Amino acid sequence: MNDKTPFQLPTIESTTDARLQTRLQHKIDHKTKPQGALGLLEGLALQLGLIQCSESPSLREPQMVVFAADHGIAAEGVSAYPQAVTVQMVANMLAGGAAINVFARQHGFALQVVDAGVAADLPAHPRLLARKIAYGTRNSCLEPAMTRPQAEAALAAGGQIVQTLPGNVVAFGEMGIANTSPAALLLTRLTGAPIADAAGRGTGLDDQQLRHKQSVLMRSLSRHPATQPLDALAELATLGGFEIAMMTGAMLQAASERRVVLVDGFIAGAAALVACALMPQVRSYLVFCHRSAETGHRLLLKHLKATPLLELDLRLGEGTGALLAWPLLQSAANFLNEMASFESAGISEKQ
Amino acid sequence: MNDKTPFQLPTIESTTDARLQTRLQHKIDHKTKPQGALGLLEGLALQLGLIQCSESPSLREPQMVVFAADHGIAAEGVSAYPQAVTVQMVANMLAGGAAINVFARQHGFALQVVDAGVAADLPAHPRLLARKIAYGTRNSCLEPAMTRPQAEAALAAGGQIVQTLPGNVVAFGEMGIANTSPAALLLTRLTGAPIADAAGRGTGLDDQQLRHKQSVLMRSLSRHPATQPLDALAELATLGGFEIAMMTGAMLQAASERRVVLVDGFIAGAAALVACALMPQVRSYLVFCHRSAETGHRLLLKHLKATPLLELDLRLGEGTGALLAWPLLQSAANFLNEMASFESAGISEKQ
Repeated sequence: MNDKTPFQLPTIESTTDARLQTRLQHKIDHKTKPQGALGLLEGLALQLGLIQCSESPSLREPQMVVFAADHGIAAEGVSAYPQAVTVQMVANMLAGGAAINVFARQHGFALQVVDAGVAADLPAHPRLLARKIAYGTRNSCLEPAMTRPQAEAALAAGGQIVQTLPGNVVAFGEMGIANTSPAALLLTRLTGAPIADAAGRGTGLDDQQLRHKQSVLMRSLSRHPATQPLDALAELATLGGFEIAMMTGAMLQAASERRVVLVDGFIAGAAALVACALMPQVRSYLVFCHRSAETGHRLLLKHLKATPLLELDLRLGEGTGALLAWPLLQSAANFLNEMASFESAGISEKQ
Repeated sequence: MNDKTPFQLPTIESTTDARLQTRLQHKIDHKTKPQGALGLLEGLALQLGLIQCSESPSLREPQMVVFAADHGIAAEGVSAYPQAVTVQMVANMLAGGAAINVFARQHGFALQVVDAGVAADLPAHPRLLARKIAYGTRNSCLEPAMTRPQAEAALAAGGQIVQTLPGNVVAFGEMGIANTSPAALLLTRLTGAPIADAAGRGTGLDDQQLRHKQSVLMRSLSRHPATQPLDALAELATLGGFEIAMMTGAMLQAASERRVVLVDGFIAGAAALVACALMPQVRSYLVFCHRSAETGHRLLLKHLKATPLLELDLRLGEGTGALLAWPLLQSAANFLNEMASFESAGISEKQ
């Protein structure tokens, strides 16, 4: 990708296959359990089968990619932490000491960290992918966060990273001080949710800080009138962040390769929201893993008609919610592949 | 245990240790994350540390024990399935084809099945423990489900099974057609919850069948006036089931050995309710794993002030909710043991 070629959205196939769906549902319903008794795992097993075009889906070599970037809007004091924490946490992840490292080791995920646009030069590291678009976005209270070519470059970079990954499952995380702000802006702009609902306490604002954050976000929105008709890519450029844009591109590419995509919390949800606005077919490849404590996240998931697997009051990001939910995907595939049927086990059906 | 010696409740130590709690909370709060950002996992890590008297808890050789029994009240038509399914599902578990087998294999749990009182003779099997108290309980609409010696024998048998288990984590599951009925009866009797709330659809009753179940449970309760003052063991004998009583004894014994106890859904929750009524100190050893779709389960958890880890709309029992939550316990221990602190990682704290 260079700035002269326009970004090409990948082709994403529909997962709709009525005959396969019927066969999968029959297989699920005839396992030795009351119909529906495995709850959300049953719909998940169906989704995995449809994504993989298989009655026996299998999950191989799961990959975690954490996109890190800084945000011009941090200068407005919208986060409880100083911007320097982004680069410090990237170093922590590369050293293996962050929560996401712990959970990636636990669950056998390969982990890579992407410099999507951190506001500092990062030393080379075998697990760090240098894809910096710029040293942080601009402050969207004053000017567009990114140029359109920057946003397109970020989308393309995310897609290219996925192309190099093995396996058939990808999870995306993020690190970026202040990034609940661009996520809230995108939520408001793409769904009409009021800022008062979309903006939450992030990593720990008090009441006064929350009111300040909301007024900052209102200024950003009024500085940039909505595109008419809504142009999701333009809104992403104006209001978003490099890690969100790269994650959006990564989700689209992963779906185009029929990979299962684990969606973490609020920030990853904002990337999913943009991805679905750009290409609605991506939706059926997304597994929503966690509902965070962030106020807007509930609205975001409702808009995407998503029922997340976990609700653990996490508000950390990094991809932690996605990795904590991962064993449930394995359980969904395992019950579909390994449980006996009523017929094979010789068990009486419902009276 | 024989019928001549009265059942002795084991001694359960308090997990309260203010100095250890302070040290654990300090360790949790100084990990490289905002305070509280790992949500329920933080309280879980604290609980594991207090149970094990350690700032570095570790979980070893987890064990799953499934208690199976039949219920006289099944004759009233309170279940969607015929009673024969209990013994058929025991055979399925011994053959490795049930959901609990799949999840036990996934998570490395040793699995044993206990005949606590199935209404049939079961052939010997290496994974089957023969602890049959009787061929099912009596019908509590007509007479007490168990004699008091039977209830005490079941409590003792559950405790004795736990004594033989390796490791420091136990999960208990159950199988017993109609066993949401004794669970609902115990919930109503021990907490005052109305039968209309306590009794739910079990494995899949329709509206008319649900009304019938509720009228049956009302008859059972009016047949047996409440003990004054409330005698939890007497109520367990009158209204409960062999698998519930054995699970209650197993929970008490496990807590007396400072094991972590994974509590599954509604039936296991009823056993936990009885255990807490008998010995309130057991409560702090219990990790509530899942909130089932069963109506009364929400009330039961509220009564025990429990916030379950998962809410996946499961209504299968067997212990499935406990095993699905298990990786979250490992994650809680892992973050406590492996994550860097702000100091060790050189990261700025909150502004």
